Amino acid sequence: MNDSIWAPYLIFLGDEQDSRIAKTGSGLFYWAKDRCLAQIRLPGAKADIGLPDMSINEAVKAGARTLVLGVAPAGGQVPKSWLPTIELALRSGMDIVSGMHADLEQIESIRGLAERAGRRLIDIRKAPEGLPVGNGVKRKGMRLITVGTDCGVGKMYAALAIHRELQQAGADADFRATGQTGKLIAGDGICIDAVVADFMAGAAELLSPDNTANHWDIIEGQGSLHHPAYAGVSLALLHGSQPDVIVMCHDASRELMVGLKGRPVPSIEASIELNLQCARIVNSSVRVGGVCANTSAMSESDANDWMTDTQRKLQVPVCDPVRTGVSSIVKEINELCAA
Amino acid sequence: MNDSIWAPYLIFLGDEQDSRIAKTGSGLFYWAKDRCLAQIRLPGAKADIGLPDMSINEAVKAGARTLVLGVAPAGGQVPKSWLPTIELALRSGMDIVSGMHADLEQIESIRGLAERAGRRLIDIRKAPEGLPVGNGVKRKGMRLITVGTDCGVGKMYAALAIHRELQQAGADADFRATGQTGKLIAGDGICIDAVVADFMAGAAELLSPDNTANHWDIIEGQGSLHHPAYAGVSLALLHGSQPDVIVMCHDASRELMVGLKGRPVPSIEASIELNLQCARIVNSSVRVGGVCANTSAMSESDANDWMTDTQRKLQVPVCDPVRTGVSSIVKEINELCAA
Repeated sequence: MNDSIWAPYLIFLGDEQDSRIAKTGSGLFYWAKDRCLAQIRLPGAKADIGLPDMSINEAVKAGARTLVLGVAPAGGQVPKSWLPTIELALRSGMDIVSGMHADLEQIESIRGLAERAGRRLIDIRKAPEGLPVGNGVKRKGMRLITVGTDCGVGKMYAALAIHRELQQAGADADFRATGQTGKLIAGDGICIDAVVADFMAGAAELLSPDNTANHWDIIEGQGSLHHPAYAGVSLALLHGSQPDVIVMCHDASRELMVGLKGRPVPSIEASIELNLQCARIVNSSVRVGGVCANTSAMSESDANDWMTDTQRKLQVPVCDPVRTGVSSIVKEINELCAA
Repeated sequence: MNDSIWAPYLIFLGDEQDSRIAKTGSGLFYWAKDRCLAQIRLPGAKADIGLPDMSINEAVKAGARTLVLGVAPAGGQVPKSWLPTIELALRSGMDIVSGMHADLEQIESIRGLAERAGRRLIDIRKAPEGLPVGNGVKRKGMRLITVGTDCGVGKMYAALAIHRELQQAGADADFRATGQTGKLIAGDGICIDAVVADFMAGAAELLSPDNTANHWDIIEGQGSLHHPAYAGVSLALLHGSQPDVIVMCHDASRELMVGLKGRPVPSIEASIELNLQCARIVNSSVRVGGVCANTSAMSESDANDWMTDTQRKLQVPVCDPVRTGVSSIVKEINELCAA
């Protein structure tokens, strides 16, 4: 898919007010800077992922080939106010990439324009055809999955950081994307939450196929076993991944779970325990590689105190992929797996 | 849907050799006898669900209004050898009901014939449009879900038997179907394994809506938390159901899990423990109502010994819905919930 989605990208932020909602755009900019040319925003937008602003015309002149819809508004529908920008991009020769539940093909004006202009509407959430059901057969090779105490705690960042660190150390490793942003960054993967339920585990098994004994698949986890809206997706992905190592991701400043009324975030310990228990069903030797925290809302010293305390309590490496990097976790993994 | 799928039914068993594969047909005959007129089999078929055999013409004369495809061949595709029977049924004025993954609408000759004859092709697996994501908000009313040590251990039979027993005792209770056979029997429900992953828990929440305090929803479970192909579906359904009571279903003669190479069936204790642990995330007061065993492969005395031993070991009622009925479980539930 790296071949088929053409860089450089112009990232569309709509009229988004909150940079944190522009997850796809900011993730793409952080992990695939070389493919990101500029951002484009509607009047009144306050979200800013740090790229220069360009109009469609400016971006096309600068070489942009694809407009990436970089925000996911609640409900997943395409707001009417976005249509003129999308239409101008198509008329100017750009493809459109979307990771929303709403299908661009369903918007008649957009579909017609894309056909006439010979441009593509690429829906990266769409599940592949012909997925199998899971079979639980143990595959060769090493697998690590990032799991979480909640949704949106940095499971993709953690997996990408561990993958990069392993590759820099000369290991044979692949990042396996399971969400739309990860898929855009990696150029490949399966959006596991868009798969029909019966085939989730089969899709997860396909994602990290049989491999050589010392190859690492670093799998982007989804949701949380403690999140009642998405735990089924998390469990199917955990089972299909047959992890040798889990890495627990946690937002160090969050008290309440995302999208649930007043439900407290579970403890890191409880979340590790439940994940290990479920993972043992498919891999009896699964172990904990460490904790990746998101400490972005804390001061440097508060963050360091929190990580030191947590590390002392849990007796596994604790780090923040963005603030400290993940070398302590990669060291732990290498020791665990050499042992 | 009871209104819209017209009885009586003619149940099609294809050329199936094994009565156990004809699950939809035999379940329908066991639980909805009054709506089943006859069975129809291709030459060489050995499966027999106990209904009289009729040809399409005989069945139409006897009043049959719907041909129900009562077997699910591996892979879920419609074999070519079935087409003449389906075509003749349409020409004779019958609707067709299918619960297979393959869509009858995709078979051109069938679709064309149905259109010309003004007959319906009803796909009961199809998920409803516009399902929400889950929200985990506690709903009023009492809920019981049947869970399992494996797939195909009698979760639907157990739920239907408990529902019938509760209704006969004058309780206000609904059976909530989550698979195609249950949906055909109940006339309503959602095939949870056909829902897109992101919406599984939301679908499960919809299935047993907010109700009066003493109303019982008796929910048909799916799969098993210990089955790596389907555990994600089981967990989403468990979470969305917010059960007050779980009933564990188990095949007393089975050693290896269905569809998995050489994987032993987990113990009833381990399966109860994992289900309780996950269910507590959505309902901290969840309890065990008992064990429903399938002892059909055992002699009367072996079955009774097994049930007595298991009951002594687990200290909860143990029964076989078909052999002994479920009155001991319904008594336990009433005591638990009065306490």
